[in-house]
Amino acid sequence: MSRQFLDNDFMLQNEAARILYHEYAEGMPIFDFHCHLPPEQVANNKQFKNLTEIWLYGDHYKWRVMRANGYEEKYCTGDVSDWDKFAAWADTVPRIIGNPLYHWTHMELKDPFGIAGKVLNPGTAEGIYKQVNEMLGQEKFRARGIMDHFKVKAVCTTDDPADSLEYHQQVAADQTFKSKMLPAFRPDRAMAVDTGAAWIEYLERLGASANMTISSFNDLLEALEKRHEFFHSMGGRVSDHALLVPVYSPASDSELEAVFRKAKDGTAVSPDEADKFRTALMLHFGRMNAKRGWVMQLHLSSLRNNNSRMFAKLGPDVGFDAVADGEVGAPLSRFLDALDVTGELPKTILYTLNQRDNDLLITIGGCFQDGSVPGKVQFGSAWWYADHEDGMSKQMKDLANMGVLSRFVGMLTDSRSFLSYPRHDYFRRILCNIVGTWVEEGKAPRDMDLLGKMVADISFNNAKEYFGINIE
Amino acid sequence: MSRQFLDNDFMLQNEAARILYHEYAEGMPIFDFHCHLPPEQVANNKQFKNLTEIWLYGDHYKWRVMRANGYEEKYCTGDVSDWDKFAAWADTVPRIIGNPLYHWTHMELKDPFGIAGKVLNPGTAEGIYKQVNEMLGQEKFRARGIMDHFKVKAVCTTDDPADSLEYHQQVAADQTFKSKMLPAFRPDRAMAVDTGAAWIEYLERLGASANMTISSFNDLLEALEKRHEFFHSMGGRVSDHALLVPVYSPASDSELEAVFRKAKDGTAVSPDEADKFRTALMLHFGRMNAKRGWVMQLHLSSLRNNNSRMFAKLGPDVGFDAVADGEVGAPLSRFLDALDVTGELPKTILYTLNQRDNDLLITIGGCFQDGSVPGKVQFGSAWWYADHEDGMSKQMKDLANMGVLSRFVGMLTDSRSFLSYPRHDYFRRILCNIVGTWVEEGKAPRDMDLLGKMVADISFNNAKEYFGINIE
Amino acid sequence: MSRQFLDNDFMLQNEAARILYHEYAEGMPIFDFHCHLPPEQVANNKQFKNLTEIWLYGDHYKWRVMRANGYEEKYCTGDVSDWDKFAAWADTVPRIIGNPLYHWTHMELKDPFGIAGKVLNPGTAEGIYKQVNEMLGQEKFRARGIMDHFKVKAVCTTDDPADSLEYHQQVAADQTFKSKMLPAFRPDRAMAVDTGAAWIEYLERLGASANMTISSFNDLLEALEKRHEFFHSMGGRVSDHALLVPVYSPASDSELEAVFRKAKDGTAVSPDEADKFRTALMLHFGRMNAKRGWVMQLHLSSLRNNNSRMFAKLGPDVGFDAVADGEVGAPLSRFLDALDVTGELPKTILYTLNQRDNDLLITIGGCFQDGSVPGKVQFGSAWWYADHEDGMSKQMKDLANMGVLSRFVGMLTDSRSFLSYPRHDYFRRILCNIVGTWVEEGKAPRDMDLLGKMVADISFNNAKEYFGINIE
Repeated sequence: MSRQFLDNDFMLQNEAARILYHEYAEGMPIFDFHCHLPPEQVANNKQFKNLTEIWLYGDHYKWRVMRANGYEEKYCTGDVSDWDKFAAWADTVPRIIGNPLYHWTHMELKDPFGIAGKVLNPGTAEGIYKQVNEMLGQEKFRARGIMDHFKVKAVCTTDDPADSLEYHQQVAADQTFKSKMLPAFRPDRAMAVDTGAAWIEYLERLGASANMTISSFNDLLEALEKRHEFFHSMGGRVSDHALLVPVYSPASDSELEAVFRKAKDGTAVSPDEADKFRTALMLHFGRMNAKRGWVMQLHLSSLRNNNSRMFAKLGPDVGFDAVADGEVGAPLSRFLDALDVTGELPKTILYTLNQRDNDLLITIGGCFQDGSVPGKVQFGSAWWYADHEDGMSKQMKDLANMGVLSRFVGMLTDSRSFLSYPRHDYFRRILCNIVGTWVEEGKAPRDMDLLGKMVADISFNNAKEYFGINIE
Repeated sequence: MSRQFLDNDFMLQNEAARILYHEYAEGMPIFDFHCHLPPEQVANNKQFKNLTEIWLYGDHYKWRVMRANGYEEKYCTGDVSDWDKFAAWADTVPRIIGNPLYHWTHMELKDPFGIAGKVLNPGTAEGIYKQVNEMLGQEKFRARGIMDHFKVKAVCTTDDPADSLEYHQQVAADQTFKSKMLPAFRPDRAMAVDTGAAWIEYLERLGASANMTISSFNDLLEALEKRHEFFHSMGGRVSDHALLVPVYSPASDSELEAVFRKAKDGTAVSPDEADKFRTALMLHFGRMNAKRGWVMQLHLSSLRNNNSRMFAKLGPDVGFDAVADGEVGAPLSRFLDALDVTGELPKTILYTLNQRDNDLLITIGGCFQDGSVPGKVQFGSAWWYADHEDGMSKQMKDLANMGVLSRFVGMLTDSRSFLSYPRHDYFRRILCNIVGTWVEEGKAPRDMDLLGKMVADISFNNAKEYFGINIE
Repeated sequence: MSRQFLDNDFMLQNEAARILYHEYAEGMPIFDFHCHLPPEQVANNKQFKNLTEIWLYGDHYKWRVMRANGYEEKYCTGDVSDWDKFAAWADTVPRIIGNPLYHWTHMELKDPFGIAGKVLNPGTAEGIYKQVNEMLGQEKFRARGIMDHFKVKAVCTTDDPADSLEYHQQVAADQTFKSKMLPAFRPDRAMAVDTGAAWIEYLERLGASANMTISSFNDLLEALEKRHEFFHSMGGRVSDHALLVPVYSPASDSELEAVFRKAKDGTAVSPDEADKFRTALMLHFGRMNAKRGWVMQLHLSSLRNNNSRMFAKLGPDVGFDAVADGEVGAPLSRFLDALDVTGELPKTILYTLNQRDNDLLITIGGCFQDGSVPGKVQFGSAWWYADHEDGMSKQMKDLANMGVLSRFVGMLTDSRSFLSYPRHDYFRRILCNIVGTWVEEGKAPRDMDLLGKMVADISFNNAKEYFGINIE
């Protein structure tokens, strides 16, 4: 065992793993069923002016390690020059060995840019910067070119129910671009009944998008229903929900109307009232999803906006979120059960930011498998901060140990960047290494066709089947 | 490293591991101190009509993965033919590579049935089904024959205090069967004061078994005391308790009588009242156990009956249970302390379904080691959903890291099936692999007699000593 | 792979690991920035009468495994002879294979005593006891001799704000001893407002040390401020805080004065009042630390004094503490944020006894990196019960995965014993093995200068920089 960094067998520690990867997984296309790509950039086939723009403008993963490495905010979100930001990043890279960003950085330089055999550091920074900037001027390194290069057959973006989806329409109408860009229904703002004026203002926007006035809780449900139907007509097949912890606090219609009125009138609602409101909406989303055959994605245990000084300065989603604790089991179980008991539990994917709850989520999910769809309730891929080799391995091994790994729908980037597709490759290598190790250690039969089909399914086929999206 | 699936050195990844297993652990007898075998089947030396009956009739582990694999309920608990159920299972098996069921399935085919060198899948299903069904007609594949084959010296079943233990008496009186079948005292139903009519009806049954009428909390304690004494006379040396989370809510005698009366009168008790009631009973069980030198087994952090639709259809214990979260530390500590402070803490085994709490349980247990018995408070073997290679390894390594592994009482099947004894073999292989790896990596001395004694002790001798059951 | 126990490449499983350790980490000096050495023993250059005194008199780690191994209390803290205690320990050692104490015991015999090639057990006990006892009579095995031997450049002890620090003054004034012994400010007793008379009595002591009478909450803050200033003048640069879970319960000045008065008058304060009081003091400590450039160390999730029978007999810190659960995320986040928002968050190290919260602590810490100091909020080394190979590996890998390992300040002994310095060696070997494995598996570049600097920094340089203590 004496390997070169990032060679072609990166992450593949044995012969069976290498066969599984190179012969079965490597060539599979990508269906990135949850990401944060800006739809406008796909629609307009974004061209990036330099490596800083495509790599550093929106990447709070990188900002976090730059701050921890002692770089002031101006190098992250501030107004120093693009080169100075890049130089700060290049100076940080040798400091983050062991972090997945170290791997991703060099995987992304290698593919699509073809820069291999050297690492990014202050000594190589200028050369790499110039070399990549030049490539970014070429057609094949614009947004769509990169997607084509990585065989991205479809992506699901993250969209507010009030969004017009104009860019989705533009892309769908464009015969020159073969990949699908589908919307995902993410109604977090509708849930935020405890945010006062922001929520009231949002009701206006949502009502306008649905051509109605929202004056009651029932109106709100109706508006969401209309938008769900519209998203469906635009190819939407998935809803996304960010939850600190699951809520399950059932309430009567009149209670819900009262909470609605209170919030609409600008009065602060109590935590209990907000929980009731959110529970009712979540049940509504579940039922709409079930009715239209959609997938419901729950993103659990993220404690957001921890740094109020930086939140005041920069707003959300800039690198000040963390792993949460809190009770998950009973409320999640009751929520899923409330949908299941009337036959309205949709296909569901459970993600957690807190890996200590993997077992809990897998086994609760296992209680709602009803045989209607293989892997109906999924345990989602290692998410965000857990999205490293150890975390991905743990997610897949935990799922194998307590569930049915072969039915897993696999990887998504969750990324804002067009350069993040190598994370699918990272995932496939890790998957193949796990399964290959089982073979070499005598823990799985050496049936490469069976196992090859399994890794190919997890790489792409399962997700295609599960989401029911027509990808040629 | 290039091994065949399930060869004779299965799970043993180095030379020291192989020596420890083959020379010290493999041949040890089995004391299965916690299982769910139906006593009647041992008493009447059950003969199984086919592989479906012995494998699939009561095995909710298998049902869960079949449901997750897309099989409808009729293939699990429903009325399709035994062959159709078996065919569904055989179709599912290739899908569950990575799950311990994949290993157990093939270990059980290999031993006792001698079917090796092929795996179960739709292509082999019919042949295997016929071959095993024929063997099941033979004397040596009846219940007792299988137990003899695996050198099962003793089992502890799981019994309600109100049970007559007639089958235990029958087995004890039968000179032709050498293994011991001992009862375990599992008073979960007596604890269920918040289940209304079911609990009231249970009091009747319990009272009848104790030849008394239970009209007060004190009567209840007395009836349980009588039954505990009766179980002791039948060789019982262990009580079992299933707890969502530990409770410790002390109450006065008059409070307890009031809760009793309320529940007996058919009035719903509050969660607080139920906690007080359960705390008092648990303390009572602890004291009885201490008095008679028994072992108390606490099974923690299981969230049961999550699917109310299936519960209404099939009742409990059919595969709809999950891992729970919830506070464990302080209430467990206070409960053990309340017994210890009067010198009435019995030998205790702490099991958890939530492996995130391993450290907590090991270190709390370590606070109540008083030197009276080696390993007085035990951290129990990886349980139920955690009963896979990673979970068993973690349980043993965590125990080694924070406690005294050599004093561990080891494995139990927790199973309803006579075919589950290979799980002891699985456990021993994993244990030997851990210890052998320490040797090969220079982390333990290469003293095979010392280490061999350790693995033999954990395989059998420690449990025999700890439970104080006379096994020749 | 076939290694001898505890050879020179102990824990180093590959070539890159061996190079990193032997060429970069092994020779680094030690800065033990958190320990419990008795200052008097350094000041007076303690001579130990025998191996029992230096090894067993104060070591509750060893007592715990002796109790679990079936030894009565008299062999731990009781009055049997020193030889009998040692014999009990020697009898226990072969029983604890897998526990870090097994490694530490033999590492300590090897260095500084030079006893290698044999293990401690009943057969070798007498010879080892005599051999070491003789050495302990020599000058170089007195307290300072041992510290010199291990190149201990500085230690931070653990001191109450009311302490006179006379021994620190004595050591500072002694030109013959080159190592620094610095105080750490541990105001746990000032926080214990819910302990009645003990707290009132403590106020007297604290007031006396600050030359003032403490009659109000404000007086208490003032007294602590004076003592903090005094500790600073004595070279103190760190405060220590033991917390069951983080608290964050803000209160007004008048509320705090009211709680103070109530407690001072001997009235029991409520848990809520105690939380408010503790929150206010913790914020005060944070601000003082920020003002003087100190480091704040938070030790989280320890559930102490679980065994009330033994607490009554022996008091605290004798081996009856455990891992705690409880909510950590939100209160910790709010506490750090309350300091950050006014620019008064000091350098902070977060330790946890519950490894399930590693991810949470690393990511919350990452939300308060402001670029002012590299690694400003640190995730502290695996602590206490987690201080074994698996725990240390997990702490470092988790930090690498979610943070910036290269900025880690590394190891401390947390020990009462002069023989515990090999734990730094243990840590360095584990660190080098992790990084070396990345190299050999192709997950890090084979740049030994870069990686060698990284392990040397984590071994010593980072801590020196971070604490800002002048060590030549």
